Parts: sequence; structure tokens; C-alpha cells
Amino acid sequence: MKESFLTQEKKHFFMNEAIKEAHKALALAEVPIGAIVVLNDEIIGRGYNKRETSQDALSHAEVTAIKEACNSIDSWRLENAQLFVTLEPCPMCAGAILQSRIEEVYFGAFDPKAGACGSLINLLEDTRFNHWCYVESGVLMDPCASLLKDFFKDIRAKKQKKKEMLEKD
Amino acid sequence: MKESFLTQEKKHFFMNEAIKEAHKALALAEVPIGAIVVLNDEIIGRGYNKRETSQDALSHAEVTAIKEACNSIDSWRLENAQLFVTLEPCPMCAGAILQSRIEEVYFGAFDPKAGACGSLINLLEDTRFNHWCYVESGVLMDPCASLLKDFFKDIRAKKQKKKEMLEKD
Repeated sequence: MKESFLTQEKKHFFMNEAIKEAHKALALAEVPIGAIVVLNDEIIGRGYNKRETSQDALSHAEVTAIKEACNSIDSWRLENAQLFVTLEPCPMCAGAILQSRIEEVYFGAFDPKAGACGSLINLLEDTRFNHWCYVESGVLMDPCASLLKDFFKDIRAKKQKKKEMLEKD
Repeated sequence: MKESFLTQEKKHFFMNEAIKEAHKALALAEVPIGAIVVLNDEIIGRGYNKRETSQDALSHAEVTAIKEACNSIDSWRLENAQLFVTLEPCPMCAGAILQSRIEEVYFGAFDPKAGACGSLINLLEDTRFNHWCYVESGVLMDPCASLLKDFFKDIRAKKQKKKEMLEKD
């Protein structure tokens, strides 16, 4: 069984950095999800969801942060690195975590519809693969979840308003 | 249940194009895996494994081909597209296929150690996710598998030769 040696204070500090990334997505009207990769207490990769802006299916927060981290240390092996992400990774991002040999994964909110780290499947702790991780869920869960909840509430309100305006015409 | 309307001839033609990509990896001494994305009988994305050359954990054949396909049609949605790949996709690549909404996936050889399309798990036909695919395995299986078998055989032979030379000194 893998374990974490990070203090609660550090976990909160780094998740807040991932939340800052999520706000960058929000500023582009993208679903607000952010991620960072940490190695020896230093942030070596940052990313936020920009699927609509980039029109690239791969541009999830985690994938962008992992790519930046690999470039940053010029290695595809991110051994001993930690990934912090505001939402439970999807299968693609969980797979990217396995491929890059990230050691520890901390996520905020659960994703019951597409989560691949405990919700629908659990890719990161499946010991049949050649790598597995320490996984901790619910780190700063409330602010991470609120970001998403408020985003979708706002979208629904705008849709309702548009519908009412069309009915008035 | 999804189905395929491609003729056997077309399947072989496109898999041969994926094999051409795998040969590009081989020329760089990378594990020879190649992929292409097809839309309306046209190849809109190509990719080959270049993990060691790029030192990027994400640079699998499928991910590169999907990224190029999204750029090519300026959309993250590759609906109605087909992906051909010489080896069964890993979780990251299967996840990228789901994210990009690719309709049909054809692969050559099975990957019993990391395959996420039937071998260890089956991400592409899991109807709990918001997208699933038609999957056909074993398309030109022998040439796809031979490429990999010969590559690893060659690596083992080189290692053995090196060991013998060191023992002689």
C-alpha cells in the first residue's frame, strides 16, 4: 500500500494552486477544472481545461499539466511527482497519470459520471497495470465542487432566460 | 450494438497506413506502434510512438493521431471517424478515443499487459461512460504483432551480445 508524506497544509496549498488554474478556465467560459504537477515541493506543470477554446479533445487540465511537467524536466518519467486536480480524473487523464509514472494523486470533487479513480472504475489502483498510485480524494472538496456547481447553475440560468425571451417574442 | 460498414479491403488498406506509421517509430528505435484517424475515407490524422525521442509521456501513436485529426477539422468532436492502430490501445489512448467521440476502432495485435480494449479492461464498450465505440480486433494481426515481436527480439539479442562482450573483457 502506497502512502503520502505531505502535510495537510501542503496538500491545501497545492490544491489551491490547482483551483487557481480552474479559474483560468472559468475566465474562458470553459468547464472550470485545474491541475498542477509537483516535484520536490516545486510546481513543474500547470494546466486547465480548454477543450472549447482549443477544439482539441486532449486539452484537459491534467494532460496539459503532465505535458508541461515532462517538458520541464525533459523526461517522460515523473517518478516521485504528485498531481493535484480539482476534479476526479477521467479515463484518459488517469491513463496519462499511469503512463507518466506519477506517484501520488490528490483530487477535490468526485465525478460520478466519468470518474476513473474510484467512481466508475479505478485505474490508478489497479495493480494489474505496470504502475499504480497513492490516491487521496476530497482535498478541498467543497471549493472544487462549488466551482463546477456554480458554473453549471449559471449555464442553466442563461438557457432558461434565453428560452423565456424567445417565448415572449 | 454498433456496427461497421467498412469493407475488408478498406480495413486492410487503412491498417497498412497505420503500419507505415509504426515503421517511422522503428526508424527512431522506438517501440513500433502506429495509428491513423480516418473521416469519410480520408486520413485526417497520423501518429507513431515517440516516447523516448520526445521524452513526453503522452506521445503515443493514438494521442498524436487524434490531436492532428482535431486540428485538421478544427473540432474536438471526431464523430463518425475511425481510428486504426497496430496495437490495442492503453487506458490513456482508449480514454482519448472516448473524449474525441471516435466512432469505430480497429486494432491489430492484442496487448495482454496493458490493453484497455478487451485485454485487461474494456473502456471502449463500457456503456456507463457517455460514449462508446464499435471495436474490431485482429485486423492484420500478424504483421502488426511481428513488428513488435521482432523489435523486442532484437533488443534482447543486443543485450545478450553486450553481456557476452563484457564477460569476455
